[in-house]
Amino acid sequence: MGKKVAVFRKEHFNAAHRLYNPAWDMQKNDAVFGKCNNPSFHGHNYELIIKVVGEPDPATGFVMDMKVLSNLLKLHVIERLDHKNLNLDTGLFADKNPTAENICIVIYEIMRPLIDPGFQIQVRLYETERNFVEYPVEPT
Amino acid sequence: MGKKVAVFRKEHFNAAHRLYNPAWDMQKNDAVFGKCNNPSFHGHNYELIIKVVGEPDPATGFVMDMKVLSNLLKLHVIERLDHKNLNLDTGLFADKNPTAENICIVIYEIMRPLIDPGFQIQVRLYETERNFVEYPVEPT
Amino acid sequence: MGKKVAVFRKEHFNAAHRLYNPAWDMQKNDAVFGKCNNPSFHGHNYELIIKVVGEPDPATGFVMDMKVLSNLLKLHVIERLDHKNLNLDTGLFADKNPTAENICIVIYEIMRPLIDPGFQIQVRLYETERNFVEYPVEPT
Amino acid sequence: MGKKVAVFRKEHFNAAHRLYNPAWDMQKNDAVFGKCNNPSFHGHNYELIIKVVGEPDPATGFVMDMKVLSNLLKLHVIERLDHKNLNLDTGLFADKNPTAENICIVIYEIMRPLIDPGFQIQVRLYETERNFVEYPVEPT
Amino acid sequence: MGKKVAVFRKEHFNAAHRLYNPAWDMQKNDAVFGKCNNPSFHGHNYELIIKVVGEPDPATGFVMDMKVLSNLLKLHVIERLDHKNLNLDTGLFADKNPTAENICIVIYEIMRPLIDPGFQIQVRLYETERNFVEYPVEPT
Amino acid sequence: MGKKVAVFRKEHFNAAHRLYNPAWDMQKNDAVFGKCNNPSFHGHNYELIIKVVGEPDPATGFVMDMKVLSNLLKLHVIERLDHKNLNLDTGLFADKNPTAENICIVIYEIMRPLIDPGFQIQVRLYETERNFVEYPVEPT
Repeated sequence: MGKKVAVFRKEHFNAAHRLYNPAWDMQKNDAVFGKCNNPSFHGHNYELIIKVVGEPDPATGFVMDMKVLSNLLKLHVIERLDHKNLNLDTGLFADKNPTAENICIVIYEIMRPLIDPGFQIQVRLYETERNFVEYPVEPT
Repeated sequence: MGKKVAVFRKEHFNAAHRLYNPAWDMQKNDAVFGKCNNPSFHGHNYELIIKVVGEPDPATGFVMDMKVLSNLLKLHVIERLDHKNLNLDTGLFADKNPTAENICIVIYEIMRPLIDPGFQIQVRLYETERNFVEYPVEPT
Repeated sequence: MGKKVAVFRKEHFNAAHRLYNPAWDMQKNDAVFGKCNNPSFHGHNYELIIKVVGEPDPATGFVMDMKVLSNLLKLHVIERLDHKNLNLDTGLFADKNPTAENICIVIYEIMRPLIDPGFQIQVRLYETERNFVEYPVEPT
Repeated sequence: MGKKVAVFRKEHFNAAHRLYNPAWDMQKNDAVFGKCNNPSFHGHNYELIIKVVGEPDPATGFVMDMKVLSNLLKLHVIERLDHKNLNLDTGLFADKNPTAENICIVIYEIMRPLIDPGFQIQVRLYETERNFVEYPVEPT
Repeated sequence: MGKKVAVFRKEHFNAAHRLYNPAWDMQKNDAVFGKCNNPSFHGHNYELIIKVVGEPDPATGFVMDMKVLSNLLKLHVIERLDHKNLNLDTGLFADKNPTAENICIVIYEIMRPLIDPGFQIQVRLYETERNFVEYPVEPT
Repeated sequence: MGKKVAVFRKEHFNAAHRLYNPAWDMQKNDAVFGKCNNPSFHGHNYELIIKVVGEPDPATGFVMDMKVLSNLLKLHVIERLDHKNLNLDTGLFADKNPTAENICIVIYEIMRPLIDPGFQIQVRLYETERNFVEYPVEPT
């Protein structure tokens, strides 16, 4: 039986966003989201790490070619999020806030169908060096 | 059913410490702890990362407000350890060495009761860029 | 005669911006600014380093108290730029693009009158880890 | 019962390598490995992190003395890989490519017998800041 | 009169090299270059930062478009050095060692004619996080 | 005529210190130095970078062998400061505070006589990632 290895690829994108709940008034949004509720938006340099778990192919020694993984991320995630306003431009956060948590889930849901189902995946997203998230908790 | 996400918050503190076992003589302490047994202490810039695992609140998209988490860490951990002598000033290491392992356990035990019991937590502590620890091994 | 030392303090802020020239049509703006001309903005985690050059005070060993320098930056720069839309919210880029170059000059011009004229200063601004700027070229 | 803590130690080495499959012709090797198939080799600064999981010794507060762990890594791993050509000099990749995946497995297999069997271990290897791997998936 | 700003762009490449002087015997080469004299080569992840000093264009706010600068580096430097053996593949080190010092001078000499002569430039090259060089000492 | 190149070597040490002026009472010391005046000390992971400016030797391509430079730093600086209490153990701060400014000057004064007088040197010292200093302002 083969040996499972986790491989990781890091990419980045820059985006604007605003956190608020349209069901709440401005006062409650300010109380909950503070400066993140700026109606004219603010932004971040996001760092994205995808983890892919599988057995290396004996012919190559690769679980998955990092160039292929990088290109999938660039085409399906970076292209849609980089230099975008996450609230207005992406069509991905119509019904939810573009928090790090929700961006991370969205990226996972974009990538999961694109990766061999025999491989488990997990996504980590850095909003800043000091705030980051991971989804799912166990790679799936 | 909701989707569990792990969120991470990083803080730092600077402290002095000394590693030694009072039940041993100086020679044995030097043999075991080397330069870390300096009786006049040395110190570190510690980096602390807390991981909190739970389901994002649909109203906010947050597992937990990072400002709340950051403030809990500042009030209960950083305030007690920053710019302190871990052996002499904190009352937390009377019966044990302030090794990275023990500091990490102490921080976990301070934080665990302060976080919603529905959320699992884990603490990672960097003593230097090259030496770091994590407790517990599985978030609890 | 005393010995001049350079001291550096690093702070950060997150902001949204858009690069475009209102005197040009959309086509020319796209050609020149590419994705940075997104009308709904994008954003960055900016890292800001201020350098202050002077002689340490023999009574303290400080060129300048880093807490004082940090507080000046927080009050006069971070407070005005953090979680803001640089184009719309700040009143600082009415007649010029919020490029890294111009943001850096603006920060220098805010800070220069706040620092002892006997000290030379210089500002470095990271827009991303790979793109950064410094102004003035020689500290003044 | 004791409390399990994970401790981590980071080391680095610099090495040259080439990725190719001798059973394939140059054209297929180029198609699969691209620039990594350069017959005169290229190289990397590898960063290596070993994770050791166990209960801290109450007499020391250490799971394992980091100097001992560092010395084991230096003697058995760094000495064999640093400033070496992984394909030609090490005798470790005669029948497989020195991909990050395979280097990581090799390092694990060198280190596993050298660490107390009561401790679980795991190895993470950074080939670049953006490409890294971990083996085994669960510490063993 | 305009205001001079320094802009910086960071790129990276991975390469193999060997340090030795063909006029010396193996024993002297080993004494001088140690492990860097490995005849089958070793390698590094090089980080390259170019500094360009000039006045921002009032129409754009740019000293120089970072995408243009990045593309010049990729076309003329990265393409020639990345995933290469610096001694054997590049034709740039026929008569000198590919030390960080010499690589840095070579990169400067490639880039200087490609940048507007009204702009001063300087190159910094990281061979590892702990060893790096800069040329020329004053931007020219 | 040769070409001057700047070479940089980074080392680190961990130390404890206290900032206070013995000519002042505790109240004034607290007002000026805040938490840094803790009588039982606190500490830091210091990062030290030395810059040496000279012409590469045509026979080696080195301004100065980095191993030699690293060994000089280890023997004369790291050995005296690492895992030490800067106030009590070093004999270097009897008449002045171990501020980053003063530590940096002390390191320069230790190193200057040890380096070829034909080479200019400069020292940068990081007390934390956010507070650092450089001396002298121009390499000498």
